[in-house]
Amino acid sequence: MDILFLGTSSGTPTKTRNLSAVAVQKAGARPWILIDCGEGTQHRLLHTPLSLPRLQAICITHMHGDHCYGLPGLLASAAMSGRSEPLTLIGPGALREWLALTEQATHLQLGFVLHFVDVAELTGRQGQVLVEGFSISALPLSHRVPSFGYEFVETGLPGKLDVAKLKADNIESGPLWGRLHRGEQVTLADGRVIDGRDYQLAPEAPRRVIVCGDNDNPALLAGHAGSADVLVHEATFTQAVAARLGAGPQHSSAMSIARFAADAGVANLILTHFSPRYKDGGAGLTIGDIEQEAKAHYGGKLFLARDLEVFHLDREGELRRASYPSD
Amino acid sequence: MDILFLGTSSGTPTKTRNLSAVAVQKAGARPWILIDCGEGTQHRLLHTPLSLPRLQAICITHMHGDHCYGLPGLLASAAMSGRSEPLTLIGPGALREWLALTEQATHLQLGFVLHFVDVAELTGRQGQVLVEGFSISALPLSHRVPSFGYEFVETGLPGKLDVAKLKADNIESGPLWGRLHRGEQVTLADGRVIDGRDYQLAPEAPRRVIVCGDNDNPALLAGHAGSADVLVHEATFTQAVAARLGAGPQHSSAMSIARFAADAGVANLILTHFSPRYKDGGAGLTIGDIEQEAKAHYGGKLFLARDLEVFHLDREGELRRASYPSD
Repeated sequence: MDILFLGTSSGTPTKTRNLSAVAVQKAGARPWILIDCGEGTQHRLLHTPLSLPRLQAICITHMHGDHCYGLPGLLASAAMSGRSEPLTLIGPGALREWLALTEQATHLQLGFVLHFVDVAELTGRQGQVLVEGFSISALPLSHRVPSFGYEFVETGLPGKLDVAKLKADNIESGPLWGRLHRGEQVTLADGRVIDGRDYQLAPEAPRRVIVCGDNDNPALLAGHAGSADVLVHEATFTQAVAARLGAGPQHSSAMSIARFAADAGVANLILTHFSPRYKDGGAGLTIGDIEQEAKAHYGGKLFLARDLEVFHLDREGELRRASYPSD
Repeated sequence: MDILFLGTSSGTPTKTRNLSAVAVQKAGARPWILIDCGEGTQHRLLHTPLSLPRLQAICITHMHGDHCYGLPGLLASAAMSGRSEPLTLIGPGALREWLALTEQATHLQLGFVLHFVDVAELTGRQGQVLVEGFSISALPLSHRVPSFGYEFVETGLPGKLDVAKLKADNIESGPLWGRLHRGEQVTLADGRVIDGRDYQLAPEAPRRVIVCGDNDNPALLAGHAGSADVLVHEATFTQAVAARLGAGPQHSSAMSIARFAADAGVANLILTHFSPRYKDGGAGLTIGDIEQEAKAHYGGKLFLARDLEVFHLDREGELRRASYPSD
């Protein structure tokens, strides 16, 4: 399972970091899901293998421009690329109205169906959207405007073949095993008729990834973050800057999210959405300051995302930075 | 007078060319005007010396997304950069409504006044907007939706001092000359009282630049293009591609705009807004094909714009490619 960062800056783009956008994808598969779509997201896609025709769903965390102003252009380019498959769009209700007026005002004809789902419908125990390979549900967060996190849970995981039982029953390996794995009924050479469903082990536990929108209250993720394999969360400021700015911006500091992640037992924490005042290096405030502060409060596996970076989550829940396929 | 290209692709961005945006500026001055604002225009600005607080006016040629989807993000970034000065926004009426709903839907608080002018008011003989250094008027074009060109005429050109007359009247050069140039009344050492306005030559002819939106009928520019120093116009396709696509797209081919420019006596022609099917080089269709076709029909000074390129128009009406100030 791959998590790809298309933009990691908050508010305004910088020369090295674009506005919020994250892709989630099964490793090696072509379908993908986009979370947030800051201006210039389609430009970032030009430098990745992600293709607009294979986009399954777009999840918008909240209606601030740095998280959604890239949406009309990305949809227009999807249409110009010849997409005809319906596309699922999940977000706050105001998103649907804004898009409708944008389509009308700018004479945008998509040529494919946008299947809109109000994110508020996905926050209960039953609410979820199924796309290829994942179920998507939502978690309410706390920000200046309604904001949400999205939880992606793998679906359709095959049960493993019970090889020990096959051997004990003297069923030799070969093409038959594939049919048994698919749950088919099979007649053996010796006349026995056996059922594949009797030789399946339970599927592995699905991997779970949570990608959050802006949020000043990580405790809202309690009960979810601890059981997720990866939590992607904003760390817009260091605590010193957050304290100086006061409660107005309603963002998390590195300290506040790191403390929560430590308490909740988050296995892998990826921080993103950094204020442009933090530079990648040099004098003054740096992303390194955010990293140091988070490390001081969280002993789990910590990453600070950069643009066009891929994180690969393996079956054992191990998360590692992977190099991007060269474009 | 400088013309700066921020984006030269039509429809969708490519790795080397962004969507439509052009800046016009007096050489060496900081105020500037933006014509069109495709998605990612603010990203391009990061690589130029143009600053959002010094932006005087934005002129939108027509309401297609590749010409306006960058506007909300650029305005938001202007607000975040602390801009408080009013900003003039000129465009089709639908632009005002779309922006108002976008501000509302995305909780955008600009913190400066947007002074909106409907472009339809600028197409008559009297209609013009005055900003620092330029008057702006508009020319109706022909496209799938209402589309306009903008004409920028220098204003506030100082008259030159009549040095021959000063010498004939035995007025010696020195700080006095500066006061006379500003039109002040001055008492000379010998007691004579003279008026600066008597020693001014007429101002030079103002430079004129026309920047057009999408247009399939260059003849609409007759009566304007010939007297302009520079015409910036789309050449989306070569004639062969335009003929194959038929009348639907309503764009100009290199041939059609070049023929018009030759007939109208356009001194300097800059082509832009190239279909992404034309690559910068390599096999297949290239921008060079568009250039060759234009050259075959137009013998004036021809340029094919590239992103982040500056054209400098001097007082004598000579246009030359200038290197961009390094960022």
